[in-house]
Amino acid sequence: MEGKGRLIGLGVGPGDPELITLKALRLLQSAAVVGYFVAKAKASKGQGGNAFGIIEQHLTDGQQRMPLVYPVTTEKLAPPFSYEDVISDFYDTCAVQIAAELDAGRDVAVICEGDPFFYGSYMYLHDRLAADYPVEVVPGVCSMLGCTSVLGTPLVYRNQSLSVLSGVLPEAELKQRLRDAEAAVIMKLGRNFEKVRRVLQELGLEKRAHYVERATMANQKIVPLDEVEPMSSPYFSMILVPGEKWRG
Amino acid sequence: MEGKGRLIGLGVGPGDPELITLKALRLLQSAAVVGYFVAKAKASKGQGGNAFGIIEQHLTDGQQRMPLVYPVTTEKLAPPFSYEDVISDFYDTCAVQIAAELDAGRDVAVICEGDPFFYGSYMYLHDRLAADYPVEVVPGVCSMLGCTSVLGTPLVYRNQSLSVLSGVLPEAELKQRLRDAEAAVIMKLGRNFEKVRRVLQELGLEKRAHYVERATMANQKIVPLDEVEPMSSPYFSMILVPGEKWRG
Repeated sequence: MEGKGRLIGLGVGPGDPELITLKALRLLQSAAVVGYFVAKAKASKGQGGNAFGIIEQHLTDGQQRMPLVYPVTTEKLAPPFSYEDVISDFYDTCAVQIAAELDAGRDVAVICEGDPFFYGSYMYLHDRLAADYPVEVVPGVCSMLGCTSVLGTPLVYRNQSLSVLSGVLPEAELKQRLRDAEAAVIMKLGRNFEKVRRVLQELGLEKRAHYVERATMANQKIVPLDEVEPMSSPYFSMILVPGEKWRG
Repeated sequence: MEGKGRLIGLGVGPGDPELITLKALRLLQSAAVVGYFVAKAKASKGQGGNAFGIIEQHLTDGQQRMPLVYPVTTEKLAPPFSYEDVISDFYDTCAVQIAAELDAGRDVAVICEGDPFFYGSYMYLHDRLAADYPVEVVPGVCSMLGCTSVLGTPLVYRNQSLSVLSGVLPEAELKQRLRDAEAAVIMKLGRNFEKVRRVLQELGLEKRAHYVERATMANQKIVPLDEVEPMSSPYFSMILVPGEKWRG
């Protein structure tokens, strides 16, 4: 790997730019190339996506920006296209693009909202490149911990089990997993919100559930669960069901 | 709450001092009093515990140190004593001590390894004081994300569910929860290690499991699961069972 640049998976935290770590900031500023994922709609307006917005202030003009523009924004595509194929091709292309920089000896930091290995898109580049290049992964404050901090509500006590679930899960599985959970976090709400709220109500968990949008960001919103407008719930929203308080 | 000091629950990250956030560092340096939990054995040697070691370099002489010394180090006590009673009394005493500083208008930052609301002892002070004083909670990089970063192994892909479990769980429950998990993290190993490894073997998960001690700290150790000496496994060790790779 001599002479090759280093691939850096760089967690930048949940949204508040001050929630980046000293290490992430140092490696960010030392990288010749800064890669970031961004939705097509944002990229076409010249915008850089959430993670990029968190760290843009720290970049110098000399650092190369490498936008990685998602070709699709939803997991539902009309046949003959499949999300899996399209997104897999996209990650292949990103990996080739990044490898070219690494081969030229330039470090590439791929920034990730939250943490790189906790549902971050960086993982798919890591799996394609880590065997061939020096790699460093900088963990970040993940979004669920951003949420619990702004709610001011402890998440898990003592020996409680925590279940981190995706709102995309089929209703029956979601219900089973929530029934078994002592504390739970449900991510990826968006269009799944109504289903998730229904399941929480059926399980009698709605009183313990907290809803947060864009936790720690400037436009953060904490809304009572029964007042959320399902169609307006953004992808970066989350429901937390903290564990029962332990008197400790 | 006018004139009262602010209670700050301050996550300092998993161990590497560079994995503290800019916000945590700022609030740490602005606090008149810095509280930290520490085991009796360490305190009697004048040591400050893991979290304190992470941030000590940032403190000035003018900042008051407030060690909060655990009266017990194990959850098993000989009757008539119960861990619950002893530890509950201890947190009551800590809360009174901190309240005195807050009433005098001084900010108290209670530092926590990892994140304050993710199994942190700070939670028990928070529950006792948050209703009466201004409070700020600064999330931190939690230990499980420190582990996955040093392993270089993504933890959860796409819509996989993650189960965070305590090694203290009874064997049958641990087995059931691990069987249901798509990805899992098992904390609080220590004397529970042998039981946890047995369960993983019975479920055929031992090949997917990774063992780490003191991730991101200077004395970090990554050991193959079958080579771990059960009696030497420290409390700050962890087992990760990452989700199955998604080709993405």
